[in-house]
Amino acid sequence: MTSEDKKKLKQFKKSIEEEKKTFIGYPVNCDFNYSELFDILSTPLNNVGDPFQSGYYGLDSREFEKEVVKWFAELNNAPMDNFWGYVTNGGTEGNMYGLYLARELYPKGVVYYSQDTHYSVSKNIRMLNMEHVMIKSRHNGEMDYQDLNDMISTWRSAPPIIFANVGTTMKEGFDSISEIKKVLKSLAIPEYYIHVDAALGGMTLPFIDNAPSYDFTTGVQSMSISGHKMIGSPIPCGIVLALKSNVGRVARAIEYVGSLDSTVTGSRNGFTPILLWYAIKKYGFNGFKKIIRGCVRNAEYCVREMNKNDINAWKNDFAITAVFPRPDEKIVKKWKLAVQDDIAHIICMPHVSKSVINEVIKDIKA
Amino acid sequence: MTSEDKKKLKQFKKSIEEEKKTFIGYPVNCDFNYSELFDILSTPLNNVGDPFQSGYYGLDSREFEKEVVKWFAELNNAPMDNFWGYVTNGGTEGNMYGLYLARELYPKGVVYYSQDTHYSVSKNIRMLNMEHVMIKSRHNGEMDYQDLNDMISTWRSAPPIIFANVGTTMKEGFDSISEIKKVLKSLAIPEYYIHVDAALGGMTLPFIDNAPSYDFTTGVQSMSISGHKMIGSPIPCGIVLALKSNVGRVARAIEYVGSLDSTVTGSRNGFTPILLWYAIKKYGFNGFKKIIRGCVRNAEYCVREMNKNDINAWKNDFAITAVFPRPDEKIVKKWKLAVQDDIAHIICMPHVSKSVINEVIKDIKA
Repeated sequence: MTSEDKKKLKQFKKSIEEEKKTFIGYPVNCDFNYSELFDILSTPLNNVGDPFQSGYYGLDSREFEKEVVKWFAELNNAPMDNFWGYVTNGGTEGNMYGLYLARELYPKGVVYYSQDTHYSVSKNIRMLNMEHVMIKSRHNGEMDYQDLNDMISTWRSAPPIIFANVGTTMKEGFDSISEIKKVLKSLAIPEYYIHVDAALGGMTLPFIDNAPSYDFTTGVQSMSISGHKMIGSPIPCGIVLALKSNVGRVARAIEYVGSLDSTVTGSRNGFTPILLWYAIKKYGFNGFKKIIRGCVRNAEYCVREMNKNDINAWKNDFAITAVFPRPDEKIVKKWKLAVQDDIAHIICMPHVSKSVINEVIKDIKA
Repeated sequence: MTSEDKKKLKQFKKSIEEEKKTFIGYPVNCDFNYSELFDILSTPLNNVGDPFQSGYYGLDSREFEKEVVKWFAELNNAPMDNFWGYVTNGGTEGNMYGLYLARELYPKGVVYYSQDTHYSVSKNIRMLNMEHVMIKSRHNGEMDYQDLNDMISTWRSAPPIIFANVGTTMKEGFDSISEIKKVLKSLAIPEYYIHVDAALGGMTLPFIDNAPSYDFTTGVQSMSISGHKMIGSPIPCGIVLALKSNVGRVARAIEYVGSLDSTVTGSRNGFTPILLWYAIKKYGFNGFKKIIRGCVRNAEYCVREMNKNDINAWKNDFAITAVFPRPDEKIVKKWKLAVQDDIAHIICMPHVSKSVINEVIKDIKA
């Protein structure tokens, strides 16, 4: 390695430490320390194949992965005798998995998803070659159930595959599973599938009292939750949960690795399951509850302070995202704000303190 | 974290160190040391979106990723004014990307792939909902070109999408691009697409004198190369390369991250591009050449010594994989051998020394 390369690396390490200080626009927690696990990175771990089947490969962290999947299954009231899941490379993979499952179950199904859905979903749908209808959103980012009703009623013959958001990307709107089910019931739909993109909400709502319910007891059949968002991870990761009875239909036994090829990817990251396991063991349910209560309070503080300063901010109930009018491009760049049309947001992740919020408001007012 | 959890973690770390000593059945190099990069893991890097476009996210390693992609593009004679690529989560993602590109270019195309193709490919094809025909393999793992000819001639109206292996999984057979092109020419096929799964071969053949050619000058339009195989990485990763002019057709601009959504995944690992960059800078072309020469020699040694000991082993020219009759299940488990039907293999990765080979032979003979 040349001295120039060494310099580049050193400079990079310095710059990311600096950039972190103004990182408030994305739902990614910067507060983590996994240094106790770094020595694991001297081994080429690979959780290739199904987490619940052992294989020949030998260097894997399936034992940790299974604990992580089970923890999330319990958190979401999945049936303990009929759940399945794995640690993914992020929300997109989990959503793709859920849609793939739905398509295999209902090859003639039509996907309904709101216009506030994450941009990766229409790419997923395109890759999977599925029929789809985009549903209008309400102003708060939630799905428009009347429009859902109208669209499904014009496609009555095709089983609906509902892609619901528990936390839309920009406004953290929550699609209501009970409203969706009312629509399905009123139209006498006999067969349907509900997948939930719970990228952010899957690690916030279960810890918030009286929050809307979207778990497996509500009729949801699969969900994708991000690991690098609320829990925090240096590497994008996530959890996908599904009903084991459905999964059996898409897996095929593969002799080469002595395991089942039931996941989207073949070779799979064996390090991120240990990160998630470590965080779960460190904080537990009550630890996360405390952290998330702080996030909600900071989001309420952010909206209140912005309003006091004549910035027209608002947030959804139970959300940790404060939405406000898009500021100057200079502020967008400095604070790495996610923007869409005329709005921007601050997502009050654990590292976004009140003093950071005050600074942003000062910048906007200046 | 309870003391039981701590014990579990400690025990796991010990056991993977132990298991590594008998890890010779998979094309995964165990010889690496990236400890100089571990402090980067205190930051949630995310190369979300296109590596060649800057975005709002801010905490990314795109500068390293671009260098890595360029290095592989040059290694494979990609046109310097028309290449594109990114660091993937492994070979499966790269193959899926190549097939997705091919499908978007030729929606009515038919995928041809040999029966020795990695098991993940038929899953990819199923997910992408593509027409496909499986081609017979020769005994050495290579595609049967006569069968390819017969199959394409019965489907003359559909553009062929050839999925070629540069290194099949079990026998490391190399599908010949020049033979494939002869078939296409003799049948007067006007439009076709060739994707190469160069998971292993993409990091061995370019370093071996007189090895068969499969680069972009031969008519290949995309390829997937593994990063965690020959280079070695604690986390599965890979590189996908494609022609920029083709990629433009599947990307869409996404305002949310101020970048192009041109990759399969949304959020993307920012750590593995730095690992690959680090290895490339450490070894360079000549360093890799020396390492791979050693692998080929060890594979030759393995075949020779097995034959001397009445084990009916063989290998393909330019391959580092020794194929031999499937031994006892006990030996399969101990050495983590990949098996298929009645064969097994040892892949002579850099950490597989002559003395390890001698030990395996001793075990088989015992």
